[in-house]
Amino acid sequence: MNHQTEAIHIHRISNGRKEWVPDMLAIEEPLEIQLQYSSDTGKMKKSIAVTMRTPGNDEELAAGFLFTEGIISGHGDIEKINRHSTDQNKILVTLVENIKPRLQQAARNFYTTSSCGVCGKASIEAVQVNIPQRIKKELRVTGTMLYALPNLLREHQEAFEHTGGIHASALFDVAGNLISLREDVGRHNALDKLAGSCLLKNTLPLDQHLLLLSGRASFELIQKAAVAGIQVVAAVGAPSSLAVDMAKEHDITLVGFLKPGRFNVYNGIERIITESGVG
Amino acid sequence: MNHQTEAIHIHRISNGRKEWVPDMLAIEEPLEIQLQYSSDTGKMKKSIAVTMRTPGNDEELAAGFLFTEGIISGHGDIEKINRHSTDQNKILVTLVENIKPRLQQAARNFYTTSSCGVCGKASIEAVQVNIPQRIKKELRVTGTMLYALPNLLREHQEAFEHTGGIHASALFDVAGNLISLREDVGRHNALDKLAGSCLLKNTLPLDQHLLLLSGRASFELIQKAAVAGIQVVAAVGAPSSLAVDMAKEHDITLVGFLKPGRFNVYNGIERIITESGVG
Repeated sequence: MNHQTEAIHIHRISNGRKEWVPDMLAIEEPLEIQLQYSSDTGKMKKSIAVTMRTPGNDEELAAGFLFTEGIISGHGDIEKINRHSTDQNKILVTLVENIKPRLQQAARNFYTTSSCGVCGKASIEAVQVNIPQRIKKELRVTGTMLYALPNLLREHQEAFEHTGGIHASALFDVAGNLISLREDVGRHNALDKLAGSCLLKNTLPLDQHLLLLSGRASFELIQKAAVAGIQVVAAVGAPSSLAVDMAKEHDITLVGFLKPGRFNVYNGIERIITESGVG
Repeated sequence: MNHQTEAIHIHRISNGRKEWVPDMLAIEEPLEIQLQYSSDTGKMKKSIAVTMRTPGNDEELAAGFLFTEGIISGHGDIEKINRHSTDQNKILVTLVENIKPRLQQAARNFYTTSSCGVCGKASIEAVQVNIPQRIKKELRVTGTMLYALPNLLREHQEAFEHTGGIHASALFDVAGNLISLREDVGRHNALDKLAGSCLLKNTLPLDQHLLLLSGRASFELIQKAAVAGIQVVAAVGAPSSLAVDMAKEHDITLVGFLKPGRFNVYNGIERIITESGVG
């Protein structure tokens, strides 16, 4: 299943030693699900959803999505499923003649996000947020400071301690002091709460701070961090392929698999000072 | 921060011993974000998003969401933020006179989901999917079979092995044989692919199978499982409060924190046979 992973090279920092090593990323790409059906006024073709998915089994994803979201009733509703002839990331589900999709079930008629943020956009073009270009002030963080962050986060994560089921976003200064922490069942909500608290205090942009994510780094978390002006993001978990692309596009230092004594650098190592020097 | 967690009692099964013990759940509830602004035709008030969040810091969440999604530019755009007088789960952000929200940025004009599935719905009422009532055939699973599942899943999870960044949904029969496995960066996509593969093979409903989730159990995963007719869901991670509510509403057995030799039962223990008997 090599279409699910992407081979890359990364810097692996371990107790101050830096290695340039091969690594694998989980691929994250948008899939646009389109629906064709007959209505009173003829054939209708509509873009139903864009979902950030790992390529593979896309026909199943389209069929399963329409079914588990209540838009179709089952196997008998589907006439055929076709991939777009030139765009691998678009798929068209055609319903059997006279089968009406329950689109009111999908009456998500405006906008939204929760744990995703890509959600609700009906075309691939609509996914990307416009991020203002800013002149960045130089920022450096040390490897030693990074090593300490996961334990600092755990000490302060109240709800996780009790439930094991909460994501956190935390803001640190370059000396490694915890500035702010927000927790939520949705990882995107935790980051939105953190960014929102800074917005309400009028302390944006966050270009002299580091963002720590308790879990994995998705495309959209990096996009939200970019909007907030963050230059260094460290995740306890893995980044996706699109998260790395987004970090490169917006010149964000992206650290993953952060543990005491070690971490991986997926982009922007020049902002990190290790025992062996800068970058 | 006790509004982030809910105290409950659960059955904890450990090497065949059953205890009724206190536990804590992360609270998951919908928040509807509404926006009020002036347009050429007067004051406009729109429902922008419903997000499944952990209550607390909702003003920050609303402000941060509007900002990181590019709908507002910053602190100066917001006049005030008010919670609905009778509904704690609705919040209204009023923009400063003559500030126009960039709603085309949020041109998610139809529907969608990715890692969430609640996404794109513009009101709380629209979140729930209509689930057909079915007559359920009796189903029993053994604790011994459950203990073995996490290791079986790991053995078969190819992409996770390489990247550490992939969720899985797996279907097992009651003897503990792996029937089908799907992986994706989005946990909801993994389940949609699994359900979709069964739909395309016309093997729905899945009322004689067990669903294993590699991570946490959210409200929406349980809802999708219910649509597919699944009676037993086991998660390697924690369930949210709303996931437990949904499991109770649809009479689904919900197991969490599944590890070799132990697990928690949040609902429907009567379907589980342990060394000490049924339920």
